[in-house]
Amino acid sequence: MNEEQVRELLEKVSRGETPIDAALQSLRQLPYEALGDFAVLDHHRALRTGFPEVILAQGKTPDQVAQIFTRLAERNDRVMATRVTAEMYAAVQDALPGTVYSTLGKVLYLDRRPDAPRQPGVVVVTGGTSDIPVAEEAAITADLMGNAVLKVYDVGVAGLHRLLGRLDVLQQARVLVVAAGMEGALPSVVAGLVAAPVIAVPTSIGYGASFHGLAALLAMLNSCANGVSVVNIDNGFGAGYLAGMINRMSSKG
Amino acid sequence: MNEEQVRELLEKVSRGETPIDAALQSLRQLPYEALGDFAVLDHHRALRTGFPEVILAQGKTPDQVAQIFTRLAERNDRVMATRVTAEMYAAVQDALPGTVYSTLGKVLYLDRRPDAPRQPGVVVVTGGTSDIPVAEEAAITADLMGNAVLKVYDVGVAGLHRLLGRLDVLQQARVLVVAAGMEGALPSVVAGLVAAPVIAVPTSIGYGASFHGLAALLAMLNSCANGVSVVNIDNGFGAGYLAGMINRMSSKG
Amino acid sequence: MNEEQVRELLEKVSRGETPIDAALQSLRQLPYEALGDFAVLDHHRALRTGFPEVILAQGKTPDQVAQIFTRLAERNDRVMATRVTAEMYAAVQDALPGTVYSTLGKVLYLDRRPDAPRQPGVVVVTGGTSDIPVAEEAAITADLMGNAVLKVYDVGVAGLHRLLGRLDVLQQARVLVVAAGMEGALPSVVAGLVAAPVIAVPTSIGYGASFHGLAALLAMLNSCANGVSVVNIDNGFGAGYLAGMINRMSSKG
Amino acid sequence: MNEEQVRELLEKVSRGETPIDAALQSLRQLPYEALGDFAVLDHHRALRTGFPEVILAQGKTPDQVAQIFTRLAERNDRVMATRVTAEMYAAVQDALPGTVYSTLGKVLYLDRRPDAPRQPGVVVVTGGTSDIPVAEEAAITADLMGNAVLKVYDVGVAGLHRLLGRLDVLQQARVLVVAAGMEGALPSVVAGLVAAPVIAVPTSIGYGASFHGLAALLAMLNSCANGVSVVNIDNGFGAGYLAGMINRMSSKG
Amino acid sequence: MNEEQVRELLEKVSRGETPIDAALQSLRQLPYEALGDFAVLDHHRALRTGFPEVILAQGKTPDQVAQIFTRLAERNDRVMATRVTAEMYAAVQDALPGTVYSTLGKVLYLDRRPDAPRQPGVVVVTGGTSDIPVAEEAAITADLMGNAVLKVYDVGVAGLHRLLGRLDVLQQARVLVVAAGMEGALPSVVAGLVAAPVIAVPTSIGYGASFHGLAALLAMLNSCANGVSVVNIDNGFGAGYLAGMINRMSSKG
Amino acid sequence: MNEEQVRELLEKVSRGETPIDAALQSLRQLPYEALGDFAVLDHHRALRTGFPEVILAQGKTPDQVAQIFTRLAERNDRVMATRVTAEMYAAVQDALPGTVYSTLGKVLYLDRRPDAPRQPGVVVVTGGTSDIPVAEEAAITADLMGNAVLKVYDVGVAGLHRLLGRLDVLQQARVLVVAAGMEGALPSVVAGLVAAPVIAVPTSIGYGASFHGLAALLAMLNSCANGVSVVNIDNGFGAGYLAGMINRMSSKG
Amino acid sequence: MNEEQVRELLEKVSRGETPIDAALQSLRQLPYEALGDFAVLDHHRALRTGFPEVILAQGKTPDQVAQIFTRLAERNDRVMATRVTAEMYAAVQDALPGTVYSTLGKVLYLDRRPDAPRQPGVVVVTGGTSDIPVAEEAAITADLMGNAVLKVYDVGVAGLHRLLGRLDVLQQARVLVVAAGMEGALPSVVAGLVAAPVIAVPTSIGYGASFHGLAALLAMLNSCANGVSVVNIDNGFGAGYLAGMINRMSSKG
Amino acid sequence: MNEEQVRELLEKVSRGETPIDAALQSLRQLPYEALGDFAVLDHHRALRTGFPEVILAQGKTPDQVAQIFTRLAERNDRVMATRVTAEMYAAVQDALPGTVYSTLGKVLYLDRRPDAPRQPGVVVVTGGTSDIPVAEEAAITADLMGNAVLKVYDVGVAGLHRLLGRLDVLQQARVLVVAAGMEGALPSVVAGLVAAPVIAVPTSIGYGASFHGLAALLAMLNSCANGVSVVNIDNGFGAGYLAGMINRMSSKG
Repeated sequence: MNEEQVRELLEKVSRGETPIDAALQSLRQLPYEALGDFAVLDHHRALRTGFPEVILAQGKTPDQVAQIFTRLAERNDRVMATRVTAEMYAAVQDALPGTVYSTLGKVLYLDRRPDAPRQPGVVVVTGGTSDIPVAEEAAITADLMGNAVLKVYDVGVAGLHRLLGRLDVLQQARVLVVAAGMEGALPSVVAGLVAAPVIAVPTSIGYGASFHGLAALLAMLNSCANGVSVVNIDNGFGAGYLAGMINRMSSKG
Repeated sequence: MNEEQVRELLEKVSRGETPIDAALQSLRQLPYEALGDFAVLDHHRALRTGFPEVILAQGKTPDQVAQIFTRLAERNDRVMATRVTAEMYAAVQDALPGTVYSTLGKVLYLDRRPDAPRQPGVVVVTGGTSDIPVAEEAAITADLMGNAVLKVYDVGVAGLHRLLGRLDVLQQARVLVVAAGMEGALPSVVAGLVAAPVIAVPTSIGYGASFHGLAALLAMLNSCANGVSVVNIDNGFGAGYLAGMINRMSSKG
Repeated sequence: MNEEQVRELLEKVSRGETPIDAALQSLRQLPYEALGDFAVLDHHRALRTGFPEVILAQGKTPDQVAQIFTRLAERNDRVMATRVTAEMYAAVQDALPGTVYSTLGKVLYLDRRPDAPRQPGVVVVTGGTSDIPVAEEAAITADLMGNAVLKVYDVGVAGLHRLLGRLDVLQQARVLVVAAGMEGALPSVVAGLVAAPVIAVPTSIGYGASFHGLAALLAMLNSCANGVSVVNIDNGFGAGYLAGMINRMSSKG
Repeated sequence: MNEEQVRELLEKVSRGETPIDAALQSLRQLPYEALGDFAVLDHHRALRTGFPEVILAQGKTPDQVAQIFTRLAERNDRVMATRVTAEMYAAVQDALPGTVYSTLGKVLYLDRRPDAPRQPGVVVVTGGTSDIPVAEEAAITADLMGNAVLKVYDVGVAGLHRLLGRLDVLQQARVLVVAAGMEGALPSVVAGLVAAPVIAVPTSIGYGASFHGLAALLAMLNSCANGVSVVNIDNGFGAGYLAGMINRMSSKG
Repeated sequence: MNEEQVRELLEKVSRGETPIDAALQSLRQLPYEALGDFAVLDHHRALRTGFPEVILAQGKTPDQVAQIFTRLAERNDRVMATRVTAEMYAAVQDALPGTVYSTLGKVLYLDRRPDAPRQPGVVVVTGGTSDIPVAEEAAITADLMGNAVLKVYDVGVAGLHRLLGRLDVLQQARVLVVAAGMEGALPSVVAGLVAAPVIAVPTSIGYGASFHGLAALLAMLNSCANGVSVVNIDNGFGAGYLAGMINRMSSKG
Repeated sequence: MNEEQVRELLEKVSRGETPIDAALQSLRQLPYEALGDFAVLDHHRALRTGFPEVILAQGKTPDQVAQIFTRLAERNDRVMATRVTAEMYAAVQDALPGTVYSTLGKVLYLDRRPDAPRQPGVVVVTGGTSDIPVAEEAAITADLMGNAVLKVYDVGVAGLHRLLGRLDVLQQARVLVVAAGMEGALPSVVAGLVAAPVIAVPTSIGYGASFHGLAALLAMLNSCANGVSVVNIDNGFGAGYLAGMINRMSSKG
Repeated sequence: MNEEQVRELLEKVSRGETPIDAALQSLRQLPYEALGDFAVLDHHRALRTGFPEVILAQGKTPDQVAQIFTRLAERNDRVMATRVTAEMYAAVQDALPGTVYSTLGKVLYLDRRPDAPRQPGVVVVTGGTSDIPVAEEAAITADLMGNAVLKVYDVGVAGLHRLLGRLDVLQQARVLVVAAGMEGALPSVVAGLVAAPVIAVPTSIGYGASFHGLAALLAMLNSCANGVSVVNIDNGFGAGYLAGMINRMSSKG
Repeated sequence: MNEEQVRELLEKVSRGETPIDAALQSLRQLPYEALGDFAVLDHHRALRTGFPEVILAQGKTPDQVAQIFTRLAERNDRVMATRVTAEMYAAVQDALPGTVYSTLGKVLYLDRRPDAPRQPGVVVVTGGTSDIPVAEEAAITADLMGNAVLKVYDVGVAGLHRLLGRLDVLQQARVLVVAAGMEGALPSVVAGLVAAPVIAVPTSIGYGASFHGLAALLAMLNSCANGVSVVNIDNGFGAGYLAGMINRMSSKG
């Protein structure tokens, strides 16, 4: 039952065509159909905030990814899918030429407003070279949400001067995404140097007792620095999305 | 906005006192206020099914438990609280004499319809003597929900004849709660002997590599027998509630 | 030694043809041969309840699966195997044309009574699209056990309106199977909306700190909702079997 | 070596009083003494942002807590300590009358500007009553950082209507702290209903397979909703601090 | 239904006093009552092998322990309880003077045949002094089962000469119990020096990453030496029982 | 320094050819060279006990396996290697025709005394069909050590009658190897039915929360039955070796 | 059999009093008695290196600690016990006045050569104030082994300037002990700043997902910096001992 | 800003060409640019200590490895990369003929000073043959750092005589690397026999409950022997680097 249907029902009540008890009965089902309306509002909100809908391609077939991507492209200027394989990319490209594929970040996207202004303020940082794929997923996500993203890569804590040499960039950030594997210490160190929120992304980079990112995850959850929160291992998208959300909020007051 | 308020609103629309757009605006908020009604319906459902409201006393103060218990007793024939300490019991007893306290199961309850007929079909089984407190929590829960509960205690798998000697009771069950600690093998063995659902309750009984019930929990989740599902470690209440729900369903067709 | 043989023995004792000591000796072996009878009874029970025998194909060779499947098909109207690969399917198909293979659920089955009436009441729910293979395993299992199964897929908790929009279907269920990966929250939410048992199936969908379904498993075991029990990760068969068992019980009173 | 000392050194070089090699030698040590200056800047930053210094009292003696608290109170309008026992409170109270102690949140604080305007936008939510101590720690932290905090307590997912009935408050938030134990599903559900960042705080509330908050932690890390990040188990302070930081940023653009 | 009762029934059939159908009905219950006979046989076996019945006192009340202990003492020359507190000991002592309590091993026992010959062959070894309580539980168990036990304590692998200095004792063993905490290396080293089975008992001695005996347990399960098997953490009783069983078997051929 | 060299040295001392101090100096090094002798003695012991040397092929190249196997075959009647791939088998077969390869158990062996009498008493049991490879590794090991092995396969606890139907075989065992995956309950049930030691082998059979055999391992460590000890997951060799050792001991008194 | 006994035996062989075969027999036992000699040599080594014998008091009674401490004090200038309670201290003090007790580090020691020169080079670092007890255990251990120890406490990575401000001290170290709890990042950062070995000590400081030091332990094991190794959680003694050993080695060439 | 640039600046100040304020401004940036200098100093330190720069090839493309290797080879006599695949080796070999590839240790290196003297003192030990790849990584690392390395392989604790037979080599070590999988007991045993630091390397060798090296890791962390520290599972490089660092320190006093 959508808004139009409710209006119709009310008009019938007003005209005496529908008895009150019958109307009451219909409306008793409203909460959940009405939440169908809520979904529409939600859709409006999506348009309003400029946050693109995002497909998690992992676990879907190339054909499914292509169909969903194409349908979203009919109604959105920007469409994005994460964890996209080369085969999935080919399927989408066949159906919808003009998409861009980041081999590094495994992100596939369409941006029909590439020249729209970006809100500066997001900085994405990595401990090592191997963390860059996760960082790229975060960076592209934040970018498509309308943020300008600066990148500070390969500044792990074992060579502190590399990090401190980029302090000016870090301190200009309104929000930072910090991706690191192994001991996962970088978010703590970064958070101690800046006054902005740090979104920590543990990566699965490492071996042995890294337990596929568990060591980094636990380290980040136990950060002794203020202003740090954590997303799932290798969840560059989640971090980029949250960073974009915070950065855009902060720019609007 | 409850049902009465919706009716009033509709009547105003019917009488032309409230314009359709204003009514629409009011109803747009309905889903969530209407869910306030849903809570009422839920309450009705509780009355209808005879499932008592249950207080998890753990983590509450004796005074809080006493207040909640007393308020529930104003509107229900049966009130029940789990994980109740002696001190909490004393506090409730002061406010509301006549409650019953199971020292074994740490359950406190009030039953104003003790002679109401119980639906037979629930059997509660334990591997050892130490599992009995968890089993009692389950048994009292199912009983207060209107089920007659049979108990088959201390029939662990290391002495199979004890279990097989009670096979007649087991096979008459419509649903079984099987509580066991240590290696948690009993639910698999029981489920192989009966044609009814088995709700497995791992208990924290054991030491060393039982890891406070983890060993039993994992064993039960990996049961090779059909018809077994599992609740949280020591969650006698959850098992008893589910058993009661299934037993009463089966009796009504 | 089956019942007929025991009767024969007793008749011989009655006629004095078999001395008491010899009969005693034969009967001394009875418990275990008699349990051979128990297996026969069990077989009768299987016929009576309509619960099909099920092959767990995983870990068997295609040839083994084909042999077991064929032998079961000689004595049953319905035969079912789970976790079947395409290669296994081919082997069975060679030996026994006419089986059906669910590519999605990896279930292979034969149903010689496809038009037999199904007992309505089972609803299978998933959080996401990726959980559907597990859900299909559950749905086919319950179906072959003689239940009519409704499916409510892709109604995860992050978009609550999707779930609430299907509330009517959920609330008609006599028993629900709810499969979800990642944070595994769906069974708790569903159980709060219905008055029927919820069988929660954690799936291995997710990455990083989902630890192959462990996160969802723990969440479901800790459900704050009443009426929830849990089966092993990805155990669609176990959930479907239990749901079918409960649904059929409830229909018979 | 501070700025004054560097100036002096340069003047000596300029006057030829210090040879270049000696100056070079002195300056080689500069980076780290100069970072001593950076600490001073950091202190300025603390004053500028109004973020109070916070004492983690756990693991310190009452006397230590009292000394640190008193010294901080000499230079700050607001002083705050977390995880404070009654004994620690007494010690501080002796040394510095006028502090306020939250028995619920175990927070001790001094606020000499209680009437300073608070920035609205922070909402703190809990799944149950037992999560409130963690929520209070978060709420007081954000409040002392200059934010107005709204509280929505005991709205766990098993009774969805309770949550949806407060949707208006949730949707007005600029940032939310959501604390939940047991299955930890609440942050996912909340994040699906709002457009603001959700800081998820797993609590140690629960038993058995909650493993002291691990179940909730994993669930939150695996949230299928966008805009969720996670802090350590029971880390109300960390969540409140981050929420306060984000809310104040967003208000300043 | 025991053998005598079956004989009686057969005689009645033979005499025509019991109709065949009635006899059949009685015998249908036989498998499980017959297993009641099995329990009797089991009891005989216990008498025959001299293996004492053992009470796990942990989790029982002093009164329960006293009652069970006393009842067992009516029918056995030797009675034993493990994990007995001083309070439990007092309760038993009141009811049954003359029991012996090992403060070290927390074992309470009665031995009315203290001078009965013991079968030599069991050696109990510990890595450190702190492992001795577990070793004592093992030693007393094996002793009461009729074995002579030699003790080689505090011969951990970090001081190999201590161990090698006792090699003569080790090599005379027919079966060894080796208890060790911390890194749990001792069973591997011992098993490499002897030709007899080694029953490894991980103890909970240690701290930090010993995780209450988990480190030792895993080490022992991964032993590179032949002839090693493992019991639960701190399970001295289980190891002593198994050692006694093996030693007595080996002495009888 | 081997025994011959020590004898030579002593003869020189006896003949006055070597001064006492020089002999003392030589002997001071003896412990470790003398342990070279100890290896020889160990070798003698191997011959005496008939325990074959065993190669763990896993992690070695086919060529390494072939070389070691061939060298051992020069000095032993029986040679055995475990975890042998088909490729390794081919390499050994090239170098030493006549070896036997168990495809099921992945064991490669040479037995030049196939008709030597075997000591009866070892029984190997499995819960399911999938556990048979592990059981075969155990059975071949015990067989090559000179034991006659009986096999009772696919008698899991969910169908108790299958197990009880073979009770006669189980109760004749002097020692049992019981391999089971999933919930790992079989060793507890078996140990309750027999009076002989049970060596439990958890297998990695299962999925989801079996965690590659961890569930079965924990269950077996927590067995409530007496006389059970445990070896590593899938360690058929270790179990078979220990069973063989115990069985042969028991036959010699 | 000690050296004197071997000499005697050789003399008897030389004089023809002991036949060669008998001597050979005696010497065959030598390796292990001779290792009794090795223990004596080990004792010499202890005297030579000045490394004190150390008592782990945890798990011992006050009386046991007092007895061992007193006996060691008869033969050593320095005696040390770790994890000593106040009650144990009292017991030792009664028996042997003049010992020193570190309330902070729970170390009890006797140093009869307090003025003996210490070898400089050991630096002990902590992340926070709460890590100091572990650091003190390390520092006292290294000191009693003859090393001069510098302390750099409370320089955690969230305030990098605190650490960098002490860089001169850190860079003078020949070996560093770095103790940290929570995220355990400090050793990685320190190791990146110095050219000396870093012994990382995870402490159990933290809460929630620190899992009693596990998070810090994993972080340290995964350090991306070179020259870092790790000891057990809270093992200040182990770290101090190793640091002392390395520092003294490095000073002697 | 490097040292040369600072010198130039100082000379301009000295000549009056740069005003003091301008110089001060330049120097104010020094900490971070100066840390660029610190990198240079670090580079000097690398040359001075002879510690080669090392590439962790894992996670990099062959092309990336080749580029980095080539660039390092322009400025260093020795270049080393670990975890190098055959494909990476081919890529480097194309770009820079003359490198050496250890198939066993997966190490690729260039050594232009192969005849430079090595500092004796490092001994690398393994428990089994399968641990040798990890040991080789350690040995090559220490060798390239200028240390002479002795190898004692396949001396696991189950055959103690193998280890004791090499005691002379072990006791000559100034530092030992001990690699072992399975139960990880070897470092404890070795450390009890020598007076030098033992760097323990758990390897992932094993199966089942070795959990990919976790069992060995925990065992080593819990070592009861003094002087043991631990690196990550399979981290031969880290152990070799640390051993090389300690050995070279000890040789210089």
